[in-house]
Amino acid sequence: MDKSIKRVLCTVMYHGAHYSGWQIQDDKVSVQSTIQSVLSRMHHHSVKIVGSGRTDAGVHAFGQCFHFDTDLNLSEERWVIAINSQLPKDIRILDAHYVHSKFHARYSVISKRYDYLISKEESNPFSYQTHLSITKKLNYHAMNQAISVLVGTHDFSSFCSNSKEEMPNQVRTIMHFECLDEGEQIRFILIGDGFLRYMVRMLVAVVLDVGLGKLNVKDVQEILDKKDKRAYSGIVDPCGLYLMEVHYKEDEE
Amino acid sequence: MDKSIKRVLCTVMYHGAHYSGWQIQDDKVSVQSTIQSVLSRMHHHSVKIVGSGRTDAGVHAFGQCFHFDTDLNLSEERWVIAINSQLPKDIRILDAHYVHSKFHARYSVISKRYDYLISKEESNPFSYQTHLSITKKLNYHAMNQAISVLVGTHDFSSFCSNSKEEMPNQVRTIMHFECLDEGEQIRFILIGDGFLRYMVRMLVAVVLDVGLGKLNVKDVQEILDKKDKRAYSGIVDPCGLYLMEVHYKEDEE
Repeated sequence: MDKSIKRVLCTVMYHGAHYSGWQIQDDKVSVQSTIQSVLSRMHHHSVKIVGSGRTDAGVHAFGQCFHFDTDLNLSEERWVIAINSQLPKDIRILDAHYVHSKFHARYSVISKRYDYLISKEESNPFSYQTHLSITKKLNYHAMNQAISVLVGTHDFSSFCSNSKEEMPNQVRTIMHFECLDEGEQIRFILIGDGFLRYMVRMLVAVVLDVGLGKLNVKDVQEILDKKDKRAYSGIVDPCGLYLMEVHYKEDEE
Repeated sequence: MDKSIKRVLCTVMYHGAHYSGWQIQDDKVSVQSTIQSVLSRMHHHSVKIVGSGRTDAGVHAFGQCFHFDTDLNLSEERWVIAINSQLPKDIRILDAHYVHSKFHARYSVISKRYDYLISKEESNPFSYQTHLSITKKLNYHAMNQAISVLVGTHDFSSFCSNSKEEMPNQVRTIMHFECLDEGEQIRFILIGDGFLRYMVRMLVAVVLDVGLGKLNVKDVQEILDKKDKRAYSGIVDPCGLYLMEVHYKEDEE
């Protein structure tokens, strides 16, 4: 890489309701395309950003990460201010810092944390874009048993939409998976070394099915063991999903 | 009124961010026009609704009220379900009930409660449409002194945008005005027999000016006493304002 070119890593928060997701898609407004437009305007040439991974339409982020390369000489604080001044208010850069040229926002990821939020009240105009609503009583003991089946290293083929052709290895490790009763809301926390397409939303769906008595823990074990896309079709709405943190090796930043 | 015609009073919650306000305006999408479209479709003819009063663009409601007349024979529960099934998710009917023909959603009002919400954190993608952000420290003692100047019956000409021609009597009574520190947010509560245009947002602005040390309590008294539109020009953003409740005489409903 040219010595005058430096790599910048940014952390970004966004409300996903009005975007087609992170990834650029033709004719649609994505978070990536919105940020790239701002950076391209600042550089007077096209700038590409590389995210830690995709988020689906309607999914939010408290801590998505992306990198880009630049020949502009701005301080880290200045990058935050300059980009935010041109972004819509539902996307905010929280942090920017220079990283070495081998750092890569996607390939350097070691783990990610996703949260899923559920309101115990009826959906209303102030919650429908940020929380799933479940007013029925949930069996937390049974949900925790289902979670203990799913945590760890498994082939998650039954809980994702990726075909074996596009993603031959569907083994992933979930290091942490918990369900917290926070009073007015329920929070699922999942930390893993990688998540397949729809995996978080399908795992939350199957745990909720157990909490609602539609499935039992044995069913969850059987679905997991099948390693088959036809084994389970449940998925929760994207509105409750938040990419909370992307973890990188400290020495890579 | 024809005996087969009955009057229905509805309570409605809405997120105001995507509307030009309550009131119908040419070429713009208002809360009123959105609800009228649904009711007109249900009745196969044009239906007008009468709100308790206007709310400005971007202002929210937890308990706006409106009435309409109908020849349809639905139960009160059914009205709620039928209207909500066709409304966008940022408008929700909370309650519907039949009232006698002399009840009027605007003329029968005895008081209204407005709340104004302020976040103590920087504005972010999840708060910018629902809270004003003030990260500076506020002097609550001084704000409460300013509030004590404003509560009661006064000519509020200095704190509204209505001209004397369109609204000759600008005397209103504020029965209750308080400022609550709720930890992460600050809540102003105002209950009055009526509010002039921009009055709540100008009163909150002047109290905040005192809390920030820009004005003192004597200044507020002087502005109030001037009864002059040129005396004060501060106004807070509509995003933090909520019409919470409309109060009617019990025997009128």
